[in-house]
Amino acid sequence: MIELTLIGIGTGNPDHLTIEATRAIAAADLLLVPLKGADKADLAGLRRHIAARWTTGARIEEFDLPSRGQGGDYLAGVEAWHDAIAALWAARIAAHLDAGGGPRVALMVWGDPSLYDSSLRIAERVGRMLPLSVRVIAGITAIQALCAAHAIPLNRLGAPVTITTGRRLRQGWPEGADTVVVMLDAGGAFLSVPPQGVTIWWGAFLGMPEQILDAGPLAEAGGRIMRSRAAARAAHGWIMDIYLMRRVDG
Amino acid sequence: MIELTLIGIGTGNPDHLTIEATRAIAAADLLLVPLKGADKADLAGLRRHIAARWTTGARIEEFDLPSRGQGGDYLAGVEAWHDAIAALWAARIAAHLDAGGGPRVALMVWGDPSLYDSSLRIAERVGRMLPLSVRVIAGITAIQALCAAHAIPLNRLGAPVTITTGRRLRQGWPEGADTVVVMLDAGGAFLSVPPQGVTIWWGAFLGMPEQILDAGPLAEAGGRIMRSRAAARAAHGWIMDIYLMRRVDG
Repeated sequence: MIELTLIGIGTGNPDHLTIEATRAIAAADLLLVPLKGADKADLAGLRRHIAARWTTGARIEEFDLPSRGQGGDYLAGVEAWHDAIAALWAARIAAHLDAGGGPRVALMVWGDPSLYDSSLRIAERVGRMLPLSVRVIAGITAIQALCAAHAIPLNRLGAPVTITTGRRLRQGWPEGADTVVVMLDAGGAFLSVPPQGVTIWWGAFLGMPEQILDAGPLAEAGGRIMRSRAAARAAHGWIMDIYLMRRVDG
Repeated sequence: MIELTLIGIGTGNPDHLTIEATRAIAAADLLLVPLKGADKADLAGLRRHIAARWTTGARIEEFDLPSRGQGGDYLAGVEAWHDAIAALWAARIAAHLDAGGGPRVALMVWGDPSLYDSSLRIAERVGRMLPLSVRVIAGITAIQALCAAHAIPLNRLGAPVTITTGRRLRQGWPEGADTVVVMLDAGGAFLSVPPQGVTIWWGAFLGMPEQILDAGPLAEAGGRIMRSRAAARAAHGWIMDIYLMRRVDG
């Protein structure tokens, strides 16, 4: 039985790792390091740094991920992409075992494996190809990194919070929500929100040396954030950002 | 200027601490350890364990928190309670400084300081009494601990998530939500939900040796969870639990 451990590593600060995460990396026989898009530039370096710091003899294997096909049905495209990635993981794990490698396989996941991440869905597919038990180690999410950086609470006192995507936000402010966290925004979905009474807290490259923060009434901060986002994206070649908005009722 | 660091310590497993958290504890001159209710029994021991493991010379000061007055207006009662706690923190910090103590004050917060926690609101009040800069170190929340323990994603693919309280859930399933996480439930708010098509993942004492998990269709699991919750509460004298529910549309 292969033990696959999905390890949340936080959002870019190597000190976001939990003690539990460092132990799991140290215990691994095989550490899979899939690389994609932006990873190839800045993030691969961070993963190599973490791997070098905490492994105690694991075989570290980097490999390129396929690109997701664009166009067509979004969900069907994602499903096919996950199938392709699962086949890659399974092949690497099988080759490692064939070469006499041990059964503890680990994979570092940006943020936390539970939040807008595909690793659990891919692991489920791998489990149909190989005898697998899956273990998850929680990591600091971008949501917590954002709130920590701004030193703000996520929720109002006793009030609910909605976590959603840029794609969904463009369909309208979520019903019944006063605090909304937006992830996976390709850029500027907050401009689709009527800014009256809305405050935004934004962060990019959270936890990293490049971290940028901004906050203020959406009417004023919106354009400013769009400009600094575009500038940062041009400078780095990629960007990873997140924001929280709160609306005053009435 | 006093530097107050609010340190998220995760949900009960000392290995939930991040490296950043261990460093902040090590750097502290004064470590405040407020105790309340359940803390006095099991949780105080965990905090003492963490403090003993990571401090490097901090003065560790435990003190009892006042109880929150029951009855009357809920929000007004909480505000008054926070005022009383802030006065206690400020008095302890002032006494420490008067005795020649250093300016780095740290406080360990269950889970993460951003999520259904009062520390940031209390720190804001302390900041009106003493010159204070506040820093937050993110910790593993009960939400991530729950998802990790069950090895499930928090969200459906590209779909939103609503985080709410037991009190709110009793007013009805949040509009537009298919995944709902419920915190601060005094017990059984999920029984107010029409169980048709709803699956629940529940966890108590997450991350601790006493951890209990259950999951299944709400119609079957609901009563079972109520019974194991009551038994665990009777055995330990307290309980801390959380759950996630997903509803199939249509």
